[in-house]
Amino acid sequence: MAPSPRETSPELKEALEDTVQMVDKAIGRLLPETDLAEAQLYDAMRYGTLAGGKRLRPFMVMQSAKLFNVDPARAKRVAAAIELVHAYSLIHDDLPAMDNSDMRRGKLTVHRAYDEATAILAGDGLLTMAFQILTEPETHEDPYVRCALVAALADAAGPHGMVGGQMLDLIGETTEFDLGSISRMQRMKTGKLMAFSCEAGAILGKAGDMYRRALTSYAYDLGLAFQVTDDILDVEADPNESGKPANQDDKAGKSTFVSTMGKEQARQRAEMLAEQAIRHLHVFQGRAKMLEELAYYVLRRRA
Amino acid sequence: MAPSPRETSPELKEALEDTVQMVDKAIGRLLPETDLAEAQLYDAMRYGTLAGGKRLRPFMVMQSAKLFNVDPARAKRVAAAIELVHAYSLIHDDLPAMDNSDMRRGKLTVHRAYDEATAILAGDGLLTMAFQILTEPETHEDPYVRCALVAALADAAGPHGMVGGQMLDLIGETTEFDLGSISRMQRMKTGKLMAFSCEAGAILGKAGDMYRRALTSYAYDLGLAFQVTDDILDVEADPNESGKPANQDDKAGKSTFVSTMGKEQARQRAEMLAEQAIRHLHVFQGRAKMLEELAYYVLRRRA
Repeated sequence: MAPSPRETSPELKEALEDTVQMVDKAIGRLLPETDLAEAQLYDAMRYGTLAGGKRLRPFMVMQSAKLFNVDPARAKRVAAAIELVHAYSLIHDDLPAMDNSDMRRGKLTVHRAYDEATAILAGDGLLTMAFQILTEPETHEDPYVRCALVAALADAAGPHGMVGGQMLDLIGETTEFDLGSISRMQRMKTGKLMAFSCEAGAILGKAGDMYRRALTSYAYDLGLAFQVTDDILDVEADPNESGKPANQDDKAGKSTFVSTMGKEQARQRAEMLAEQAIRHLHVFQGRAKMLEELAYYVLRRRA
Repeated sequence: MAPSPRETSPELKEALEDTVQMVDKAIGRLLPETDLAEAQLYDAMRYGTLAGGKRLRPFMVMQSAKLFNVDPARAKRVAAAIELVHAYSLIHDDLPAMDNSDMRRGKLTVHRAYDEATAILAGDGLLTMAFQILTEPETHEDPYVRCALVAALADAAGPHGMVGGQMLDLIGETTEFDLGSISRMQRMKTGKLMAFSCEAGAILGKAGDMYRRALTSYAYDLGLAFQVTDDILDVEADPNESGKPANQDDKAGKSTFVSTMGKEQARQRAEMLAEQAIRHLHVFQGRAKMLEELAYYVLRRRA
């Protein structure tokens, strides 16, 4: 296997930028400004979702949908729904009772910009809206497909996925986790939603099990590579670049890949996982170039 | 119209008790005890859902389903899903940043029995699971029906419904609301989920629009009667009977039906709303006796 490229290709760079613009536009349309008495709720939902971010999950949806010639207008809706769920999870994770973060991406977190109650409700609202978006006929004309999307999102976001992973993350502040437990926690907390993001295109395209499995296997390995890199960034991050303070995990007493295996081994592990992720894409016979490149991109990121 | 009966009929009493048992059993099966590392999340979800309650919404689902000869095994799943959403809303509403309640139904609230982070996650998990339950083929063999259930639940629970209503409720602590604003807030906060509970049977039974409209109109009037009665109970409640302290709304500075129109007028209004609710059921030509009686039951309740 060739060594991981040191620079992002112009194609990936452009595709990532296009996704950011596309998602911002889609979310802006789904969450219009309003002068209703409850406008504060919508403002907070917009603030928490339009606050920047790499939009990796929407990128995964758009790229996987492309593999099965899915209408981008449909994929866009699924991409936006997943990003609402991702944003909800960040808003709730940032709360004082959870990670107690004041800043995210260089801006005040939602509960600091508004208040705690509004942040809790904004998160609840975003999660609920995501499911609603998936049920609408504009997402897919076949209700079986819409139902499958809702089921897969609920599985990825619920107690078997993100919510369970976040519970484990909090338990990890007072319990020492071994490598297996950290991996399971991260798979639930981050991996499952990434797996759904990659699988979504296959669901929309009614693709066979082989393709669905290839995409979810890719996503789990990439998700873990992403998380190992996150742990490395946490110990060496420049707050000006990452938009959040350094060494947050250590301060919270959390076991991480870095605290368990050391920085150098963690770096090797991330590289290995990225290569493994790419191997799952071989079933697409070179048609999944952007997803292949994305696996290296997550290793190189500085924030 | 005959004066509202002063006592609950043996039939209604039995049907209500049956529903309580049925829901407890269904939720217990959907949320099994576990020895996973994240067991605390499941414990808190069980604690927050199996803590008693009148199970009015599941009762509405079961009774509306009966009108269209829907298999009770299916209706039961929808009833449980709605109750999970109701429980999630109570867990989040009770949080320190929201209503800051220590007790509910004579027991510690979830964040007091566990901690705030666990309560936030338990609520998130219950909301997500509710959608998952509705997507499963056991709920209905037709994916169109399952999708319609998810869409209606999301609409009832999201920013246009419960979450928006709760935002208004918080805004009402610092803003004086008139009767119209209080009614709109309550319709969103409580009415919409009750409307879905009554409509669910019609959706499961693929009933026509006339029946769906009759059931939702019934539910909105009953929901308002329920809420006016709640406001009356809040000012005169015996904490030993209701399981929560008295005069909570007044202490929080909230405008209520009682603070706006006075207790005696509020009582008359509730009675009028119950009668109006029952009139919507005339399309069922006497086959909706339990729902008719329920409208008076919500006026008589002491907790």
